[in-house]
Amino acid sequence: MNRLLTTLILAGSASLAQADMATRAVDYHIDGEVFQGLLVYDDSVTAPRPGLLMVPNWMGVTENAAKKAWRAAGSDYVVFIADMYGRHIRPADAAQAGAAAGAVKGDTELMRTRVNAALEVFRQEAAELLDTSRMGAIGFCFGGTSVLELARSGTALSSVVSFHGNLDTGLPAQPGAVKSPVLVLHGADDPYVPPQQVADFEAEMRNAGTDDWQLLSFGGAVHSFTDPTANLPGQAMYDARVADRAFRQMRLFFAETMALPVPDTSR
Amino acid sequence: MNRLLTTLILAGSASLAQADMATRAVDYHIDGEVFQGLLVYDDSVTAPRPGLLMVPNWMGVTENAAKKAWRAAGSDYVVFIADMYGRHIRPADAAQAGAAAGAVKGDTELMRTRVNAALEVFRQEAAELLDTSRMGAIGFCFGGTSVLELARSGTALSSVVSFHGNLDTGLPAQPGAVKSPVLVLHGADDPYVPPQQVADFEAEMRNAGTDDWQLLSFGGAVHSFTDPTANLPGQAMYDARVADRAFRQMRLFFAETMALPVPDTSR
Repeated sequence: MNRLLTTLILAGSASLAQADMATRAVDYHIDGEVFQGLLVYDDSVTAPRPGLLMVPNWMGVTENAAKKAWRAAGSDYVVFIADMYGRHIRPADAAQAGAAAGAVKGDTELMRTRVNAALEVFRQEAAELLDTSRMGAIGFCFGGTSVLELARSGTALSSVVSFHGNLDTGLPAQPGAVKSPVLVLHGADDPYVPPQQVADFEAEMRNAGTDDWQLLSFGGAVHSFTDPTANLPGQAMYDARVADRAFRQMRLFFAETMALPVPDTSR
Repeated sequence: MNRLLTTLILAGSASLAQADMATRAVDYHIDGEVFQGLLVYDDSVTAPRPGLLMVPNWMGVTENAAKKAWRAAGSDYVVFIADMYGRHIRPADAAQAGAAAGAVKGDTELMRTRVNAALEVFRQEAAELLDTSRMGAIGFCFGGTSVLELARSGTALSSVVSFHGNLDTGLPAQPGAVKSPVLVLHGADDPYVPPQQVADFEAEMRNAGTDDWQLLSFGGAVHSFTDPTANLPGQAMYDARVADRAFRQMRLFFAETMALPVPDTSR
């Protein structure tokens, strides 16, 4: 096991520093291509825990993504950060990230294949850590879109949560396809997820025949509201209050859908 | 103190029966007219508690409203159920309720006067029970509309929650007017609160310059989803899962906005 991200712990808050974040890089293959995801978990915990497949934002598998995983999961969940691009594609800036994410988002079948493959790798590679009766998925921006495709593709999880993800799709969910409870956390002023896209998503869910979805709009929030590095006013901005609210919502949703103890929502 | 509603306790769930619900009718006057609201609280608790002004649905101050207050508040809050009609107007059926509610909803200034007057009566009549630094308002259907008018009128509370309330208004909130955090709990398929009304509400909040609002849409839910007696498919229907989720959301919101301990969201 590697401890590549020990500095994250040192830089973290007191509550994070008390726990013991471990990371383990996991190579895997899809159709002959090699990918590398990252397991993130507290290795001082021995009991099986619920698992969260996490699809990061368009920057992919980065230290920031590991921090996000740790913030979301702490010691309570095991997280696997999916690689949606391939091991040799590691965007260095927004332009490269846009190109990499665009190529996947533009091919919905490819997106579904990759997100489902990552879930399968997670189940296998973390088998000794996981309570596989409690598996969820979370995603941020591009990753939010990705986990919604997981739901649309018919994969049955305890819960799927999109944080400021795009809600459009190349393959709208077919009737009966959605088998996972879905929570969409949305910035009401997100210019990349305009009202028509929200309306289309709601219509898609109705048409798919599921009623276990919720969409929470946060006033004043734009894209990337959980990302501390986002700093484009009116477009993509960190919002500390909304980020706190969004992570509390995630934990409350997991508590219900995974039948977990009441969460410490003060986190 | 009257114990008019003791039967409610006997009919309630085990957890309700363990607590001690008391009710006290309170007469008050607005512009020479007499009104009668109802305090609902656990009188075995002696410490000051947060207060919730509750505006009931169009049936007004009824036993069902007291049950709703008790479900929402239990032993953790003191509730005052506002009388929006006057003591001598007690609707016996939907037609009478529609007439009574319509008369108030059609006169936004009147609605604001009555809901603010009830809040003031609550503060005075329950002074010995209340932690007045923690005051919220909740409302159901017509009552949701009423508590949103409280927010629009500039009244500063810790939190305002509308359950399946109409979101339109005769007097849109002016810039700077909204001083209370707002949570709107909405049925995504509510035929009485259509998408355009939701969009108009969001635009109104933006124009008012507040960003402390949230709107949660519940898939598959129509009007009156918290009302166990609602039974009009496609229009107004009880939805046990959505009702549970809505009350958990309310408690989570109060926990944050009133700086209360983490709620027992298993309720």
